[in-house]
Amino acid sequence: MTKNKVVQNKITNFKIGDITVGEDFLLIAGPCSIEGYEMASASAKATKGSGANIFRGGSFKPRTSPYSFQGLQQEALEILLRLKQELNLVVITEIMDPRLINSSLDFIDIIQIGSRSMHNFPLLKEVGMIDKPVLLKRGFQATIEEWVHSAEYIYKEGNSKIILCERGIRTFETYTRNTLDLSAVPIMQKLTGLPVIVDPAHATGRKDLIPSMCKAAIAAGADGLMVEVHPTPDTALSDPEQQLNFAEFDSLMQELIPIINFFRKN
Amino acid sequence: MTKNKVVQNKITNFKIGDITVGEDFLLIAGPCSIEGYEMASASAKATKGSGANIFRGGSFKPRTSPYSFQGLQQEALEILLRLKQELNLVVITEIMDPRLINSSLDFIDIIQIGSRSMHNFPLLKEVGMIDKPVLLKRGFQATIEEWVHSAEYIYKEGNSKIILCERGIRTFETYTRNTLDLSAVPIMQKLTGLPVIVDPAHATGRKDLIPSMCKAAIAAGADGLMVEVHPTPDTALSDPEQQLNFAEFDSLMQELIPIINFFRKN
Amino acid sequence: MTKNKVVQNKITNFKIGDITVGEDFLLIAGPCSIEGYEMASASAKATKGSGANIFRGGSFKPRTSPYSFQGLQQEALEILLRLKQELNLVVITEIMDPRLINSSLDFIDIIQIGSRSMHNFPLLKEVGMIDKPVLLKRGFQATIEEWVHSAEYIYKEGNSKIILCERGIRTFETYTRNTLDLSAVPIMQKLTGLPVIVDPAHATGRKDLIPSMCKAAIAAGADGLMVEVHPTPDTALSDPEQQLNFAEFDSLMQELIPIINFFRKN
Amino acid sequence: MTKNKVVQNKITNFKIGDITVGEDFLLIAGPCSIEGYEMASASAKATKGSGANIFRGGSFKPRTSPYSFQGLQQEALEILLRLKQELNLVVITEIMDPRLINSSLDFIDIIQIGSRSMHNFPLLKEVGMIDKPVLLKRGFQATIEEWVHSAEYIYKEGNSKIILCERGIRTFETYTRNTLDLSAVPIMQKLTGLPVIVDPAHATGRKDLIPSMCKAAIAAGADGLMVEVHPTPDTALSDPEQQLNFAEFDSLMQELIPIINFFRKN
Repeated sequence: MTKNKVVQNKITNFKIGDITVGEDFLLIAGPCSIEGYEMASASAKATKGSGANIFRGGSFKPRTSPYSFQGLQQEALEILLRLKQELNLVVITEIMDPRLINSSLDFIDIIQIGSRSMHNFPLLKEVGMIDKPVLLKRGFQATIEEWVHSAEYIYKEGNSKIILCERGIRTFETYTRNTLDLSAVPIMQKLTGLPVIVDPAHATGRKDLIPSMCKAAIAAGADGLMVEVHPTPDTALSDPEQQLNFAEFDSLMQELIPIINFFRKN
Repeated sequence: MTKNKVVQNKITNFKIGDITVGEDFLLIAGPCSIEGYEMASASAKATKGSGANIFRGGSFKPRTSPYSFQGLQQEALEILLRLKQELNLVVITEIMDPRLINSSLDFIDIIQIGSRSMHNFPLLKEVGMIDKPVLLKRGFQATIEEWVHSAEYIYKEGNSKIILCERGIRTFETYTRNTLDLSAVPIMQKLTGLPVIVDPAHATGRKDLIPSMCKAAIAAGADGLMVEVHPTPDTALSDPEQQLNFAEFDSLMQELIPIINFFRKN
Repeated sequence: MTKNKVVQNKITNFKIGDITVGEDFLLIAGPCSIEGYEMASASAKATKGSGANIFRGGSFKPRTSPYSFQGLQQEALEILLRLKQELNLVVITEIMDPRLINSSLDFIDIIQIGSRSMHNFPLLKEVGMIDKPVLLKRGFQATIEEWVHSAEYIYKEGNSKIILCERGIRTFETYTRNTLDLSAVPIMQKLTGLPVIVDPAHATGRKDLIPSMCKAAIAAGADGLMVEVHPTPDTALSDPEQQLNFAEFDSLMQELIPIINFFRKN
Repeated sequence: MTKNKVVQNKITNFKIGDITVGEDFLLIAGPCSIEGYEMASASAKATKGSGANIFRGGSFKPRTSPYSFQGLQQEALEILLRLKQELNLVVITEIMDPRLINSSLDFIDIIQIGSRSMHNFPLLKEVGMIDKPVLLKRGFQATIEEWVHSAEYIYKEGNSKIILCERGIRTFETYTRNTLDLSAVPIMQKLTGLPVIVDPAHATGRKDLIPSMCKAAIAAGADGLMVEVHPTPDTALSDPEQQLNFAEFDSLMQELIPIINFFRKN
């Protein structure tokens, strides 16, 4: 791995809007999928009000089955742009098709490379050639070493604005959906210098574990968290079992903010 | 999974050139990567001479590190076309970028979707819209159920010429590169009706296990095998430890052909 | 691993009754648990009549839950001894408590060390000090290297009559109970010289996969098979979903015997 | 799992010496193996001085290879008893042979069931019949459900003084030895009511990850930590790469104590 420039040149902080990534703690929240303007707008207001500083919302959904809801696609991008302008938000969405990278750049601030795309080398090269931050999720079956190499695919093309995201790995355990590997946080920070955030909901697939795993992530030194928030999780078109409602998210934030302050100041 | 048409309509046989897939045993052989015309031509002649009926050769190589050899790309496609015409071959290569599917159609007979691309849904949709057979490798991290859904992504767009390929799954064992899951052969045949072939070299990463795993695959009911053959494996630009030389491949074929005859006639 | 004597001294064949292990193909069959004399006797007669040469029957059952049927224990040992005398059988049962090894020796011919006991070092040392063959199952969580070390624990104490048994490893796949790792057959044979048999039912947990996985095991070079057979699998006190009834076992044997002959003579 | 009494009767706190388990945070420290009186005594004094409240030291070591150091055995038990009396310690050691449980009771305060013994049912029954606390480590390949059943084996025999210990599970990742599953902490606490502690060194196999994983464990709600401390880790007879020296442990404790206070009071 030593050949990799992300390993050689420990990365320095970079800015997204007012946020200094690597210094300010990233609190990314929003619905799994953008299902329409109303629910997205309500979610954006609620999460911002509770303290989130980046709004997430799925546009193109990578779904295991072709018969599952695939996202509102271009319509979702337009909703994100409208919310960005109306509410002065920093916005992130996942793109999984290299043909859509360029056309999405005007709509969003951060491009997310999803877990299933971590080994999609043409896509990695494509986001390596743009001037926007990229959130690179760990493949659920990717080793630390492969994750570093995937970051290097982006870095090598010239884009050093990379945020890493640990989201659980596939193991034999079935009680949780995947197994959150928090040791990846200090390991990847040390190897690459890049900021590493944690997505506890995709890792565990269980709402009740989100608070404890958020706290553990902060204590492990994570640079941010990503949480799914939906106005009415029970009727969500995707991931109903792991999205928080507005009250739950607000209560989570009240619990987490003192912990973030405690650890980030020490 | 019952919603899937590949599960509902057990697929019937289809033709590729003179080969009736699902009836004739597929013997796919050739180098990991096309490194030039001479080595490719020698490999094509040798493997055909020993009994292979499909020629494989990597053009665009999905490599974990961006610094590893990435394949000769368009040049490799042109070599494959030339060999196809000169030697009357059926030819397969992997494509991992949806933007290259259409431009590759004139050069090759079968498009391979590699293990790391099994969850690349835009790519699956793209090969679903063409009129060429697709070899869909199992993701090394994919469950049986996810593999069926990925086949359905192709089938749903209208392409029913799908060949499945078991190539090992990632487990805790490190003695072999991956663990060959031969139970996937009868399971996938029964679930989908599709032909299922086996790639023992990528599964195990060890040359010495190829003969025994080929025999086991045939006995498990596989519809074909894929083996990597290179003029001088030790100097190969990719996968040096798992490619057979011409003499080794010839000797393997002499051992396998009576076994194929024994099982396919019973 | 090179320090290990099982690796240094490739083992030679040994006898159990009339059977030359490593030369004669082992066909071990019988119920998961001995549930009484009648069912055991009927099973022993039926499996012997269909061609099995070793009778298996669980006495002390290692069950995940303390509320599951734990076996008839000493009563089962007595039934095995009675059947051994009445039907001239070679008999195997699992012992998991080192305190019971010596008292079981008069009742059985082969002691089975189960998958969950592969790392039970006091038990391994105990069976290393007796003069009876030991069947050492691979731990479902054990690497090849750990399995070799466990065989060495037995060998080092003086007992070289060891039969290895591949029975599947725990992976992320849930369609089958475990993943049968047939590459372990040639690997362990080559590393240790010891005979390696295969237990496809515990590996897959599915009756319908037993025939194809038995054939694959034979083709991979296995020295034997272990299959669970019960008079009425649906009412079995353990493993109802993976035991064959007498007719199914007879039909399986008729299919397998020509395949065994084909491979063992070549 | 609902049949299990550990699930039905959420357990209440219990005392070990002056410690109220489930209320007081457990800080278990000491060398991997007791290698002699001098090093054990120095370790006990140093760890106690830095704030540890339970002294650990291996007597009978479960080693993968029979040629690795197996522990001082009975001699180690005697050293532990001497230190207990001299320094007024609470002492824990692992026993893996059911025949040694009764004879070890006079020497130690807590019996540890190691990861490889979690499925050793005769051993679990044996410690279920004694009146001493039992530390039950999770099998490195055990599911949450299996771990609950193993606790029930102990509980069912009458012993409710059980401490659970998460120590990592075996996955495909090789950068760390195992993958620490911190989600197991809140899951097991909620399912059983039992205290759950964390052993970060065995989970990761890397000294440099111990501080961050200790903090994450505390934040996840763990009831204690177990850390290996050795006078001169580089010359240790077992686990040299993951034991802290006295200065490192002292520095770790100074970092952790404010974090424990922060979380245990909130």
